[in-house]
Amino acid sequence: MPPVYLDNNATTRMDPAALAEMLPYFCEQFGNPSSTHSFGENVSGAIKAARRRLQDLIGAQHDHEIIFTSGGTESNNTAILSALEAMPERDEIVTSAVEHPSVLQLCEHLEKSGRARVHFIGVDRLGRLDLEAYRAALSERVAVVSIMWANNETGAINPVDALADLAKAAGALFHADAVQAVGKVPVALKTTAIDMLSLSGHKLHGPKGIGALYVRKGARFKPLIRGGHQERGRRAGTENVPGIIGLGKAAELALAHLSDEQTRVRDLRDRLEKGVLAAIPDAMVNGDPLDRLPNTSNIAFNYAEGEAILLHLQRAGVAASTGSACTAGSTEPSHVLKAMKLPDSALHGAVRFSLSRDTVEADVDRVVEALPGIVAKLRELSPFGAAGEQPAGDARTYA
Amino acid sequence: MPPVYLDNNATTRMDPAALAEMLPYFCEQFGNPSSTHSFGENVSGAIKAARRRLQDLIGAQHDHEIIFTSGGTESNNTAILSALEAMPERDEIVTSAVEHPSVLQLCEHLEKSGRARVHFIGVDRLGRLDLEAYRAALSERVAVVSIMWANNETGAINPVDALADLAKAAGALFHADAVQAVGKVPVALKTTAIDMLSLSGHKLHGPKGIGALYVRKGARFKPLIRGGHQERGRRAGTENVPGIIGLGKAAELALAHLSDEQTRVRDLRDRLEKGVLAAIPDAMVNGDPLDRLPNTSNIAFNYAEGEAILLHLQRAGVAASTGSACTAGSTEPSHVLKAMKLPDSALHGAVRFSLSRDTVEADVDRVVEALPGIVAKLRELSPFGAAGEQPAGDARTYA
Repeated sequence: MPPVYLDNNATTRMDPAALAEMLPYFCEQFGNPSSTHSFGENVSGAIKAARRRLQDLIGAQHDHEIIFTSGGTESNNTAILSALEAMPERDEIVTSAVEHPSVLQLCEHLEKSGRARVHFIGVDRLGRLDLEAYRAALSERVAVVSIMWANNETGAINPVDALADLAKAAGALFHADAVQAVGKVPVALKTTAIDMLSLSGHKLHGPKGIGALYVRKGARFKPLIRGGHQERGRRAGTENVPGIIGLGKAAELALAHLSDEQTRVRDLRDRLEKGVLAAIPDAMVNGDPLDRLPNTSNIAFNYAEGEAILLHLQRAGVAASTGSACTAGSTEPSHVLKAMKLPDSALHGAVRFSLSRDTVEADVDRVVEALPGIVAKLRELSPFGAAGEQPAGDARTYA
Repeated sequence: MPPVYLDNNATTRMDPAALAEMLPYFCEQFGNPSSTHSFGENVSGAIKAARRRLQDLIGAQHDHEIIFTSGGTESNNTAILSALEAMPERDEIVTSAVEHPSVLQLCEHLEKSGRARVHFIGVDRLGRLDLEAYRAALSERVAVVSIMWANNETGAINPVDALADLAKAAGALFHADAVQAVGKVPVALKTTAIDMLSLSGHKLHGPKGIGALYVRKGARFKPLIRGGHQERGRRAGTENVPGIIGLGKAAELALAHLSDEQTRVRDLRDRLEKGVLAAIPDAMVNGDPLDRLPNTSNIAFNYAEGEAILLHLQRAGVAASTGSACTAGSTEPSHVLKAMKLPDSALHGAVRFSLSRDTVEADVDRVVEALPGIVAKLRELSPFGAAGEQPAGDARTYA
């Protein structure tokens, strides 16, 4: 039986159709797109076509609003650092406590080094942004707001359109980390006030090592990587041609599969949750049940240890995760779930299942079949027994 | 007849053996190397092996001295910005007037924005660094020296070992942009005082969108891209797995072909130069004839226009360039040749032929056959006639 892959928020399997389009650009159409001879010119046309496909997926007004980068992390870093440099008269950042490390750790670094004052807006028990605190943090001192479109761990979706309007009213740039949203929910940037948006190829069945930063026409911008005219001088360096072609094809496929995410994938996710919750007591779904990515399910199993559950799931042929791959292996509980103030008994027992268009019913059923026995066994071994008593101390001592 | 490609300093054809090794990492071994399940673990072992191969090529003491980046430009930017941040007690940079734009334009930006004082060291008529000026610029105020190992336009090689020793004596970090050197000349970092070194995959028959920055163990370093534990916290973001695998294989192949560069490729380059110079009057080779990359030939044709020569060469089935691809299409004469103080009559008539291990004798012979007629014809059309009079004004008005 092939293993079941339910860790698509960490990375997705690249679509073979995207690889097929990339292949000629490695050893045949290998020219540098900046070269004026035929080897280069053929390639620059293909890049243009890929940019248009990505434009369609995110509903941008202009194809030149898209800057290709090496991935989501570079895009997020670029957006925030650019805003600080482009708006020297402002030195504050507004972000949330549940952002991806590529936003959160950068902001912490900027604060520590005295380059910015950062407002880390909290969330409620369902992962929803504290709108009161958000409004209060906005002022004429804020250079940039960086809020994720959808959370990578829980799938909770933020009302980025409304948040961007509020930022705009305060004269701040608004950046959305949409790495987990693009390809899973509809995105139509031209109808919003979002100034910058990050996305990543490998999260939407495209290649690793490629991503994009959308920068609205007219928005102030300063490059992170300098020294070449590529991407209209906004991101220097020879273009990752095969990566761009692959991202372009992945974008086209993502648009074609978008309704599938909203229907079939969502149904599978709901089937998984219902099956698991029906069979396992003392378990709960984390994150906003109403406004949530259709592919993501984060379930906390009280009095069990997430890492131990994963290990047993893996033996049963299922790959999932406790949270972000970017913090995998860490014994620290998730900063997202901590910000949501999960009780200690649940904080260490969270498992994230993230589906994709590759997921089938049998995958989900394998989880529903294997998980009850795994959790029951681990709870028996726990010092708190099967009874599920409230632990006295730090849940980290469980495993 | 297939076209002849002599623009390998712009980019090389990827070796099919490198592509073959990458292929399984797109759609099969697609896991995120940070994931703890089997999908991820398989991949992180392959990354380790690729790092070792690159270590062998550059003669580094430790494999963890290698940080994978998105390419040479990111590596160059990272090295310089890192040094300024890591050495806050120093605020000067020493570089040369003939660096790649990814060093030069960044330095100009840093100077303009008041973040650093930059010494741009000049070169002589052969492109050799002014050592007197270099020594004079070094002081306890210099945070970093960034000097290219070999020039991309002329192939002139700098004595980076000696330059690094001098920088070390002044307490400055030494960075070598070795994008054009690695794979063409031997590199043995553990025997040098070089602190940082940049290289790029697509310049050595590997993939585009991947490169590396060597950072000597113990050298002060601050990341450019933050927010993840990847590359030991020195470069955040999900690894470009296929790119890294491809660069690893390309490194292994480059090491195996290194003697070929030094012998067969050099002989072909010399054959090209001899043939061209014998058949075309008023032409000269630019750059140090003694210490020069074996694959590069930059030839200035007096009273002819480089861009026009390229156009005719292309019609004859030969792809070459006037200089850096990163400035291709620009009507400005090369900043490298200007710094070498070429006379106006030659400045606009330079053509760069860059060979590789893919080049064969017939490629070179095609150039030697086609070029004399092309140059003669263009000189006839020039306002200065075939006589080769010295132009009175700006050479840019030729074409």
